[in-house]
Amino acid sequence: MFVQINWKPDKTVAIPLYLQIKHYIQTKIEDGEWTVGTKIPSQRKLAELFDVNRSTVVLAFDELIADGLLEAKSGKGTKVKNNLWSLFSSTHPTDWNSIVRKGIYQPNLPTIQDIHKVEPLPQFIRLGTGEPSPELFPQEMMTEILHRLSSKIQSLGYEEEKGLLPLREQLSIYLKSIGIQASPSSILVVSGALQALQLISLGLLKRGSNIFLERPSYLSSLNVFQSAAIGLQSISVDSEGFDIQYIKQQKKRQDASLLYTNPTFHNPTGYVMPLESREKLLQVCEDIQLPIVEDDVYRELWLDTPPPVPIKALDKNGTVLYLGSISKSLSPGLRIGWVVGPEPVIDRLADIKMQTDYGASSLSQWAVAEFLSSGFYDLHLEQMRNSLRIRRDLTLKVLEEKFTGIAEWKKPAGGFYIWLRLPSTISIRELFDTALKEGILLNPGNLYDPNSLHHLRLSYSYASKEQLQTGLNRLAEIIRKLLNKS
Amino acid sequence: MFVQINWKPDKTVAIPLYLQIKHYIQTKIEDGEWTVGTKIPSQRKLAELFDVNRSTVVLAFDELIADGLLEAKSGKGTKVKNNLWSLFSSTHPTDWNSIVRKGIYQPNLPTIQDIHKVEPLPQFIRLGTGEPSPELFPQEMMTEILHRLSSKIQSLGYEEEKGLLPLREQLSIYLKSIGIQASPSSILVVSGALQALQLISLGLLKRGSNIFLERPSYLSSLNVFQSAAIGLQSISVDSEGFDIQYIKQQKKRQDASLLYTNPTFHNPTGYVMPLESREKLLQVCEDIQLPIVEDDVYRELWLDTPPPVPIKALDKNGTVLYLGSISKSLSPGLRIGWVVGPEPVIDRLADIKMQTDYGASSLSQWAVAEFLSSGFYDLHLEQMRNSLRIRRDLTLKVLEEKFTGIAEWKKPAGGFYIWLRLPSTISIRELFDTALKEGILLNPGNLYDPNSLHHLRLSYSYASKEQLQTGLNRLAEIIRKLLNKS
Ligand SMILES: Cc1ncc(COP(=O)(O)O)c(C=O)c1O
Ligand SMILES: Cc1ncc(COP(=O)(O)O)c(C=O)c1O
Repeated sequence: MFVQINWKPDKTVAIPLYLQIKHYIQTKIEDGEWTVGTKIPSQRKLAELFDVNRSTVVLAFDELIADGLLEAKSGKGTKVKNNLWSLFSSTHPTDWNSIVRKGIYQPNLPTIQDIHKVEPLPQFIRLGTGEPSPELFPQEMMTEILHRLSSKIQSLGYEEEKGLLPLREQLSIYLKSIGIQASPSSILVVSGALQALQLISLGLLKRGSNIFLERPSYLSSLNVFQSAAIGLQSISVDSEGFDIQYIKQQKKRQDASLLYTNPTFHNPTGYVMPLESREKLLQVCEDIQLPIVEDDVYRELWLDTPPPVPIKALDKNGTVLYLGSISKSLSPGLRIGWVVGPEPVIDRLADIKMQTDYGASSLSQWAVAEFLSSGFYDLHLEQMRNSLRIRRDLTLKVLEEKFTGIAEWKKPAGGFYIWLRLPSTISIRELFDTALKEGILLNPGNLYDPNSLHHLRLSYSYASKEQLQTGLNRLAEIIRKLLNKS
Repeated sequence: MFVQINWKPDKTVAIPLYLQIKHYIQTKIEDGEWTVGTKIPSQRKLAELFDVNRSTVVLAFDELIADGLLEAKSGKGTKVKNNLWSLFSSTHPTDWNSIVRKGIYQPNLPTIQDIHKVEPLPQFIRLGTGEPSPELFPQEMMTEILHRLSSKIQSLGYEEEKGLLPLREQLSIYLKSIGIQASPSSILVVSGALQALQLISLGLLKRGSNIFLERPSYLSSLNVFQSAAIGLQSISVDSEGFDIQYIKQQKKRQDASLLYTNPTFHNPTGYVMPLESREKLLQVCEDIQLPIVEDDVYRELWLDTPPPVPIKALDKNGTVLYLGSISKSLSPGLRIGWVVGPEPVIDRLADIKMQTDYGASSLSQWAVAEFLSSGFYDLHLEQMRNSLRIRRDLTLKVLEEKFTGIAEWKKPAGGFYIWLRLPSTISIRELFDTALKEGILLNPGNLYDPNSLHHLRLSYSYASKEQLQTGLNRLAEIIRKLLNKS
């Protein structure tokens, strides 16, 4: 008995045919559809079924055999082989996948993984991507920095637990400029702010406890806390910030172990928490003994006036653990972020960091230290703000022209994002799929709030100005079409 | 009631006095000795007790107040304040510290953390450190590489899940040269081989399962698997390799989920598994369906003749997951390693990597790709082998001269290490402490095998040649003294 095949590779997409075939077969085996011992049709037969050259099938088979998924016996054809790693990787370890996210109604919507898959393909216009455009990369400065480093770096060994001292010294100076007093020993260098979140999840939180966070939130698009069996409990936010009464009431009931906030140019809404709300939030959290994690990775990207000081700058009692990163303001590929907090907490996180990867790249750490000490970073930030302001204003102009009446939004004062509210008759899934077919990659709002089915996260940071214009025009048309249909 | 203090900072060590005071107070609070509300003696009084200037105490107090551990009320003196983070970080999350290591008899011996603390202090001779000496860093090549990169790098964004493609392509070519067929899609770039182990612990293994490994082993010095509630089950090894009968018998009984091996210039013994033993081991593991993780980070550091091919090169069925790194052969600070295996496993590990830190530093990835493609890496390896050979031979000569009769060792054929067996009357703890007082930092054998109380891991890779000579001479004297005492 041979398996049934009624599938063909898609010749219109950029993925090589043999890879499509390989992945098709792989999925069948991994999903347990084609069990061990299953006979696979001959290469000739498959070439016919798939409507490809035989050599294409051979290529796919070769890799599948190398991976141990298929087994070819001369004269006996090809069979699915017992593959221990694939069996192995499908016995999901208990916790990694036990997602403890509360209030999810719609689990099977387009996921981050789908987006990751499309991102490397250059033909798509990415209207939601949360990183600075390659155009915004300060190439000349980087050239100069690398030249300087080449004479400075004597060796690149394992670093001190908390990271390269010259970098922590520079960060200490930088932090002072935004109102935060921190000696180098209370700063931990991490491989991006995301890693800080992972270290917190591994090192500070009890399994089964909950994190309070804004609704919507960047954190909801991640798995890092859920994987450590920590729940996310999102709390509604208005222009005044968190619903503080709710926090007070619910802290005990929910076994909340910390509050996560991204108060400055919030991802995905662009929101800025007013100074007064920051003070109130800090006060309440001190009162009820709820530590705060303040994620401030967009702080430097203000476009009109500088934002209020960090909550951390108001904190006299070590209530706040503060996260920063150069990913948004300079370059995500350097993978450098920092955590600032009471020294015992920093010590604990540093110890875990050592146990997981022996520290961040020294080369990256040197590069960022040099960016800071040379004054290039400040110079670059100015350029960055100017370019981002142009992009924001362009985006707002197109929205004004093409989206009036079919969407609602607010003007962001900084950061990357516009939180676009669509009519509730639009299916976000259908919109995502239709846009993708027309070459536009979107970030649907439900990534950041599972219950939010009518929002898109737009980003003016990534696509080129031409792409922003074309992409948004096309998006408006698609939305109008979908509206007419419904 | 004031607290009792009968302690003074140590003026003979390199740690600043105010930091010693700070850590003293911090420990008292963290350990719960000084509870909330405890009154602290005045700064004047403390300066007297500690026999330091008052300004030194002020400095320590300032930081402790900033960390939220102390609270100064004008007119009312200083008190221990309820600090939520310190309370917090001492409620150890259930699993991180539930170390499931079997067969530990002696838990309270000098730990890795002690060693980490001394390592940054330049006055110590480090006779056990497992990294290449700064002398061995190819500074001129790095200068040239950075110059080339400065014109090559257009931008440094978030990378593809599995890492920078040009690097994976170079790795694919390199792997071919050591007998391993792997396309770029079955290679995952990681931030050092240690991270690969962490990803495996998070992504592939069931809680409560066990890993088979060599006794002694590098893995025994880590917490990464124990933290994920995975046990380590060490197996004795002789010149023929693992006790294969034992593996066969015990696999089921122990719920073993994989076998970890470091078969080439083993850390800490320097052992090389013969080709025949590799074949046998692979055969048995295939038969009993026990996946192998082959850690091969020392492969390129052969000093006499090239070692046997990797087990992975013999593997036709996807049984082996292969780990490599440039940490030992080029530079640990770049934090670049790789994992090679069946694509489904690599996919899974790549997904977890994305969730934990969005990938390794692009700058480091570019640097390593350039090292490989330029041919500099091969050139450097030759120089590295020559220098290491001189260091090894020097070390063996000193051992011959000074340690004959008081220790036993084997000549290593590559890597960094000599596994030095001492007389059983020597207490390894006393030796470690005495040597430390005399300025020598040792790596005691029980880090790698909790039951091994008579070994040191010597490394000829790190200390300068002069230090190796002085350090080993001094060590021989210390051992003789301890022997005479006993
Ligand atoms: C709010 C927020 N925090 C953290 C991160 C992660 O940044 P990094 O690249 O520093 O890990 C992001 C990136 O998307 C973000 O939007
Ligand atoms: C056997 C072995 N594997 C892995 C590592 C970790 O190396 P990396 O720096 O690549 O994380 C070491 C370093 O001590 C080692 O000895």
